[in-house]
Amino acid sequence: MDIVVQKFGGTSVGSVERIAAVAELVKKSSNKDKIVVVVSAMSGETNKLIDLAKNFTQNPNRREFDALVSTGEKVSSSLLAIALDSIGIKAKSLSASQISMKTTNSYSKARILDIDSSKIMQTIKDGYIPIITGFQGVTEHGDVTTLGRGGSDTTAVAIAANLKAKRCDIYTDVDGIYTTDPRVVPEAKKLDSITMEEMLEMAGKGAKVIQIRAVEFANKFKVPVRVLSSFEPGSGTLISLEENNMENALVSGIAFQKDQVKITLHGVVDTPGIAYGILGPLSDENIEVDVIVQNVSVNGKTDFTFTVSKEDELSATNIIKANKNALQYEDVLIDPSISKVSLVGVGMRTHAGIASEAFKSLAENDINIQMISTSEIKITIVINEINTEKAVKCLHKTFNLDK
Amino acid sequence: MDIVVQKFGGTSVGSVERIAAVAELVKKSSNKDKIVVVVSAMSGETNKLIDLAKNFTQNPNRREFDALVSTGEKVSSSLLAIALDSIGIKAKSLSASQISMKTTNSYSKARILDIDSSKIMQTIKDGYIPIITGFQGVTEHGDVTTLGRGGSDTTAVAIAANLKAKRCDIYTDVDGIYTTDPRVVPEAKKLDSITMEEMLEMAGKGAKVIQIRAVEFANKFKVPVRVLSSFEPGSGTLISLEENNMENALVSGIAFQKDQVKITLHGVVDTPGIAYGILGPLSDENIEVDVIVQNVSVNGKTDFTFTVSKEDELSATNIIKANKNALQYEDVLIDPSISKVSLVGVGMRTHAGIASEAFKSLAENDINIQMISTSEIKITIVINEINTEKAVKCLHKTFNLDK
Repeated sequence: MDIVVQKFGGTSVGSVERIAAVAELVKKSSNKDKIVVVVSAMSGETNKLIDLAKNFTQNPNRREFDALVSTGEKVSSSLLAIALDSIGIKAKSLSASQISMKTTNSYSKARILDIDSSKIMQTIKDGYIPIITGFQGVTEHGDVTTLGRGGSDTTAVAIAANLKAKRCDIYTDVDGIYTTDPRVVPEAKKLDSITMEEMLEMAGKGAKVIQIRAVEFANKFKVPVRVLSSFEPGSGTLISLEENNMENALVSGIAFQKDQVKITLHGVVDTPGIAYGILGPLSDENIEVDVIVQNVSVNGKTDFTFTVSKEDELSATNIIKANKNALQYEDVLIDPSISKVSLVGVGMRTHAGIASEAFKSLAENDINIQMISTSEIKITIVINEINTEKAVKCLHKTFNLDK
Repeated sequence: MDIVVQKFGGTSVGSVERIAAVAELVKKSSNKDKIVVVVSAMSGETNKLIDLAKNFTQNPNRREFDALVSTGEKVSSSLLAIALDSIGIKAKSLSASQISMKTTNSYSKARILDIDSSKIMQTIKDGYIPIITGFQGVTEHGDVTTLGRGGSDTTAVAIAANLKAKRCDIYTDVDGIYTTDPRVVPEAKKLDSITMEEMLEMAGKGAKVIQIRAVEFANKFKVPVRVLSSFEPGSGTLISLEENNMENALVSGIAFQKDQVKITLHGVVDTPGIAYGILGPLSDENIEVDVIVQNVSVNGKTDFTFTVSKEDELSATNIIKANKNALQYEDVLIDPSISKVSLVGVGMRTHAGIASEAFKSLAENDINIQMISTSEIKITIVINEINTEKAVKCLHKTFNLDK
């Protein structure tokens, strides 16, 4: 039998009833494949732990904060093992330290370095279904770390890659990936499959169904991932390794992300290495910088603009300001009310004119474009946040995604 | 500076406010001694986790049950470390696996085998106060175990012994050990000190302030233990290693325990090894048997009586019944409404007549004695449960404990 990794998110294990339902689902799947389970904390639990810590200080000690919030998955993994055991299926909860899930020591944003698969494989050989705590790891010194919000997806895909699993099934509370957010565009349609590259761009730009790092991992290690619902039957959306269909749609989906901040360094002296000089220190602090635009130089000076998510606004601007002398800029401008909208589709590669068609549609709807960034299979525009829904709706219609 | 181990029970860390108060207490103590902290789960948390598990089955898988309930101390240890850090005191939570607190693998009733003090000592050397999770350990395979209810006391004393600490302070919600339960006898007085032996007998017979295993550990490894309140200032009661006072009181205190069951095997064939034959299988299941009485043999047959706590009644009787053929008894009689009352005091050793004075007092109060068991420093009587308070009151008065 092949190994299939099943990951259950917070809402999927959000109550005793849900855990019992997941146990039945795992039991059924275990007839067909060797199942390895990865669980998130019961929904709400992680926030409850965070709130407890914040009672003492807004900046809790980072090592302790990670040790604290990691307990949520320990609870849910043991509860699921108890639920499985109670219906006759042998199961063993395994913590990050028990499977030597080694990570870097950047607390709350740790990166996976290595997994010892022998413990998991031995557990399977002994006839138990391993129930692994998502979202966490341990440093080389055995201190507990967490992978950041949504990190359980990454755990699941990393384990699937490590075990050379046939597939990684991400169970959640939606039944698959849609052409865009159905709450914004009611005509949005579920996709049966999407390529890994498209998903990578979708996830990166705010399709919240699966964490971007998980898709990156899946892409790197060629793990087929399926996104499906633990609440209702259905085959979900397969994130495929290959472009099966030669007749790919031009645009597969539209992703968008609010809560973005645009930071412009005005009057930067245009010397070699200036982009690295600006972005290097941000990257060192694990701040993800997205759309980056540098204007042509006038009189040896240029403007350098990039976006970060709103939660990183303060630390990003502090870093930029601390480096004012080294960076030699005149001024920093912050625009805290922007959003990003992205068209994604492998079909774009072979078809010109997608960009101009998108810009035309936006112009007809009086939506001003502030920044543009393109890749082979993606066009991202930065617009005023209040136009987000309007832009998504008109683009969804322009590219016939409701058909 | 000497090392002092401070253990905080569930009520002492029962809320954010309590944890903040404990952090201040630890901070203050850290000026005088090197502090190592052991914590219980926040009060109510362990029961909450047990209830979660019992939703699935009345007999949850034992490995998973222990992994589940052990998370409570992980939460409180990290929270206390965060609280200390927020007031400028460096602290590190350490789990059982991080300090290699090795135990047997009898889940929920595990026994401590070994502790690796190097991690704790290194943490102290690095300038951090170690905050250790009580109540739990790990097997040689790294599976989480728990030590049973009140196990955090045992953790604290075991660590104090391991580190050769000057003292182990058990912080709780009472301000010390009393001559008897003040809720039953309002005249009960707090003792400034009590010998380890006396405490061992007191704890064993139901003084719930500290767990008996902890006192046994302290006795074995000569760790002075102090019981005191984390809610109000005071020096508590010192459980001393030596009998400092030659003029020891005859009786230091009166302990009592309800929820006991008396089990009598009637008509047992009196052969060598019969006591072991009866009690061995109970001990194998970790059932604690207390007062044991065997009558003189008549016609090669005898009655064999012992007490167990009410929670072990079912398993004890099942074991006895399963062994009926081997044990060759005629009948099993169960009396589920008894209690034990004990007089404890090192002074008894050198003074005759304590027993007869006690029996006289009970007789004058119409309290019938069902069983008697004596040791050098203790007299235990088994009586009908309804007479418990009456017996404790009259004995407290008889031996002038209110003076």
